[in-house]
Amino acid sequence: MSTSRPKEVFQEISPADFFYRNRDIAGFSNPSRAIYSAIRELTENSLDACEVHQIPPDIYVRLSVEGETPQLVSAPPEEGEEEEEAKPFPGVRTYTLRVADNGSGVPAEFIPSAFGQILYGSKYQMRQMRGTFGLGGKMAILYGQITTHRPAKITSSTGNDKIHVFEIMTDIQKNRPIILGSDKLENERGWHGTIVEFSIEGDYIRAMPKLLEYFKQTAMVTPYANVTFVDPDGRLYRFIRATTKMPQPPKEILPHPYGVDVETIRRIINVTDAEDMMDFLTTHFHRVGKSIAKRFLDATEIDPAENPTELKPQEIVSLVQAMKNFGGFLPPDASVLSPLGEDLLEAGIKKELNPEFIAVETRKPSAYSGFPFIVEAGIAYGGDVPRTGSILLFRFANRIPLLYDEASDVTYKVIHTTMNWNRYKVAQDTPLALVIHICSTKIPYKTVGKEFIADRPEVEKEILKAVREVSRKLASYLTRKESIERERKRIDVFSRYLPKIARFSTELAGRKKEPDINPLLRSLIRYAKETRKRPRLDEEEERDDNQ
Amino acid sequence: MSTSRPKEVFQEISPADFFYRNRDIAGFSNPSRAIYSAIRELTENSLDACEVHQIPPDIYVRLSVEGETPQLVSAPPEEGEEEEEAKPFPGVRTYTLRVADNGSGVPAEFIPSAFGQILYGSKYQMRQMRGTFGLGGKMAILYGQITTHRPAKITSSTGNDKIHVFEIMTDIQKNRPIILGSDKLENERGWHGTIVEFSIEGDYIRAMPKLLEYFKQTAMVTPYANVTFVDPDGRLYRFIRATTKMPQPPKEILPHPYGVDVETIRRIINVTDAEDMMDFLTTHFHRVGKSIAKRFLDATEIDPAENPTELKPQEIVSLVQAMKNFGGFLPPDASVLSPLGEDLLEAGIKKELNPEFIAVETRKPSAYSGFPFIVEAGIAYGGDVPRTGSILLFRFANRIPLLYDEASDVTYKVIHTTMNWNRYKVAQDTPLALVIHICSTKIPYKTVGKEFIADRPEVEKEILKAVREVSRKLASYLTRKESIERERKRIDVFSRYLPKIARFSTELAGRKKEPDINPLLRSLIRYAKETRKRPRLDEEEERDDNQ
Repeated sequence: MSTSRPKEVFQEISPADFFYRNRDIAGFSNPSRAIYSAIRELTENSLDACEVHQIPPDIYVRLSVEGETPQLVSAPPEEGEEEEEAKPFPGVRTYTLRVADNGSGVPAEFIPSAFGQILYGSKYQMRQMRGTFGLGGKMAILYGQITTHRPAKITSSTGNDKIHVFEIMTDIQKNRPIILGSDKLENERGWHGTIVEFSIEGDYIRAMPKLLEYFKQTAMVTPYANVTFVDPDGRLYRFIRATTKMPQPPKEILPHPYGVDVETIRRIINVTDAEDMMDFLTTHFHRVGKSIAKRFLDATEIDPAENPTELKPQEIVSLVQAMKNFGGFLPPDASVLSPLGEDLLEAGIKKELNPEFIAVETRKPSAYSGFPFIVEAGIAYGGDVPRTGSILLFRFANRIPLLYDEASDVTYKVIHTTMNWNRYKVAQDTPLALVIHICSTKIPYKTVGKEFIADRPEVEKEILKAVREVSRKLASYLTRKESIERERKRIDVFSRYLPKIARFSTELAGRKKEPDINPLLRSLIRYAKETRKRPRLDEEEERDDNQ
Repeated sequence: MSTSRPKEVFQEISPADFFYRNRDIAGFSNPSRAIYSAIRELTENSLDACEVHQIPPDIYVRLSVEGETPQLVSAPPEEGEEEEEAKPFPGVRTYTLRVADNGSGVPAEFIPSAFGQILYGSKYQMRQMRGTFGLGGKMAILYGQITTHRPAKITSSTGNDKIHVFEIMTDIQKNRPIILGSDKLENERGWHGTIVEFSIEGDYIRAMPKLLEYFKQTAMVTPYANVTFVDPDGRLYRFIRATTKMPQPPKEILPHPYGVDVETIRRIINVTDAEDMMDFLTTHFHRVGKSIAKRFLDATEIDPAENPTELKPQEIVSLVQAMKNFGGFLPPDASVLSPLGEDLLEAGIKKELNPEFIAVETRKPSAYSGFPFIVEAGIAYGGDVPRTGSILLFRFANRIPLLYDEASDVTYKVIHTTMNWNRYKVAQDTPLALVIHICSTKIPYKTVGKEFIADRPEVEKEILKAVREVSRKLASYLTRKESIERERKRIDVFSRYLPKIARFSTELAGRKKEPDINPLLRSLIRYAKETRKRPRLDEEEERDDNQ
């Protein structure tokens, strides 16, 4: 018998085991997604490792074929094909993936765990980074292990006199790295960076279009990076940096009082040296200075002299509630964020779409649950923007291009259900593209695979405002274009018929000399010029729009 | 300064800490979703605990108000409202949630971990259950703890002479339960079941519509359960069982050879008593008997006498690849699955929508990655089905109603992009509802929040086939309806004008007696009857459809 009566078996599983069992939720759901996610996660780790220390990134990604492992089952059978007949699927192969960067490197003592242990890493701080869950790179290596049973080779140096090399695997059931070998090399040239190399089963052929799109869009928003990708056929894709000007390195941020819960407070109490509430508040919370702390304590009748370590559980709950309800805290400081900026956004869009019209907007900082965020939007019309019958959408989050699951993203919701495009002179077949970038110390992703963003009301609202702003500029442009077109036609008509009328009138009056119609024509053109200059923002519409 | 220069701090975090930090991904993204998810997850655990032992479930859910904790920030400000002005949000309150069942109960020694430790539980087996990740119920309790800082009270008995009561909290950083108190009561009546009670902050007002819909739909697909819900205003919602006939308890299933990876094989090797490959294959894999095992070993040139514990890493990889490529394994046994069945599906739809036409279809079992699954579909037309301009979609997975993120679900994709509804005589304003149920030993959810299903090609194809099947039946009905309508009009015309023609002809011919037109009329009606009986399945369309 291959089945058995159920028993209630209670067991603990390790986080590695959990994500091994549920790799779908981390973006590793099939051979094609696995290759895409693996390359993506490691590239993003590399970019993060450079940006943290403001090193202009040089990233080298190479995917090469090891062997062919035709598979059953996972191929989607063609329509009409007999489903029962399982066929080998030629796309799945074993590849070697190598990702090398010139980033800050990982200290030797952390290497085995940083690459071979789930829920271990340097991403568990509140700052704007691509990595959020500290999971993706390790999932890639883990996926390689479970499909090929081979170790990963990690080479890294922080720029000191040694380069460390480790061969590791993960004990999935224990969630611990197994070191199969290690070596130390002399670092004569002072190299710093990390090279990750491992075997992985995947389907590059199917992943290719998205993957190349991923690299292209990444290059668009990280113009300070050199990214090289060598595909399994040896084709070289190079994205050369256009600038060495780096964004400010991401700063860590203290918890904002609006974003805390009792667990946060409890943890701070466990480690604090503060001996009174005044000290406690000003030391551990984002943008809480002495005067704000005093006003807060006054308002909430908490004794400023009370020792935080002596707060009772119920008092901690009251403190959290008081923090959430106190109106006097400053909003989160957005200087820890690194938006693309309007210039970069515009340059990227121009390069990509060469549109007839472009408008960009960087919104002012906002916050959700104590996390600061900034929304940026760009709109592109005409030119090379394809007429697809829908709006072409480019989504970015902390400079990561998001290419899957567009329909689940908050931006899609805003564009396809909230926006009333008729108001902005946009019809179904208008060739239109939108670019949305969100940066935050914590992007509210809805899945571990980081493919789409949850519809947090604050985020949704900012996106809507940004989209409306650029759309209004587009509407103005389209209105002007229309009236210029109308005007052109009108002048055209006048300049065609006025001479005839002039001639006819001259003949009718028995005169010889026709009147000079040029001043009249010119006056008409002047009127047209004025039309062009007229403020085009329809105040009526504006007000209506904000109701 | 409230911000600091970044340092690369490497640390290990516990799984409890991971899900605490990233509760959005488990469905706890805001106060309204938190209440919804908490009630849903605990109800589903209760239903599972009953079904495992074929106990007709009696589930009692009570949500009562503890106190009001108005909040800032999380309220979505109205359009046009000043966003900077933070306002208390009156919907958020502290509730007590109590969920009681008559299920199998949890043995005392497992209670603290089963309710106070993440990644610990009884759901890590391969069988059809609502719970998949072993996470939801604990996330609910954890969310309660981080919002109210109060312990959860668990009361449970397996039906022996004691009832055990525990007061627990979770040490999130260590991922270990903290037992604050415990008690043993005499179990004089032999009660078995579990009662979970804890405090949680949430927004019931906003969650209410979805929550009531959740209970309604749950009752629809679990007609053997009594479910009682008492809301914070004391309103009682009762769903009484219509039958005590229970589905077969879910059976655990061995791994199918098509679904294994090297990690699975490695783990089996670690625990196996098998001393040769023949024994190894027939003992540990789903539907592998002696003759199949022999054929497999012959085809792959693996020595049947080899000791599995002596396989080298590369041999394990080859074994896995051989398993995936061997065409001779039997498909997964679907007897471990418990579909709703066509009768229940039809009854549920009738009760809910009272449609003019209904068609249901339970597809034959299929499999993806070695996991068996069955797709069921129901279509409802007319009657109380609302004319919404779109298709009303009801999604179920292992008897769980899925109410959020419809647009991300594979079913939505099938219905809105793959299906060509024109072929089925369905227009934009056709009042149409579709019900899709998928049952499997592993539902390919895309998020830990279990709200939508990934587009695994095998699953997508089965859904498409099921939808096409019921849609064809609908199309036949609509065709017949049209021709009956046409016929009715034709007969109507004849029966109105034939008497006049008869009278006129009689007068014209100078006769006295009009001819009897009734046989003529009857013959026309007979023709109409035949029309009704004509086979309505258009073979042309059918073939076209499967290309």
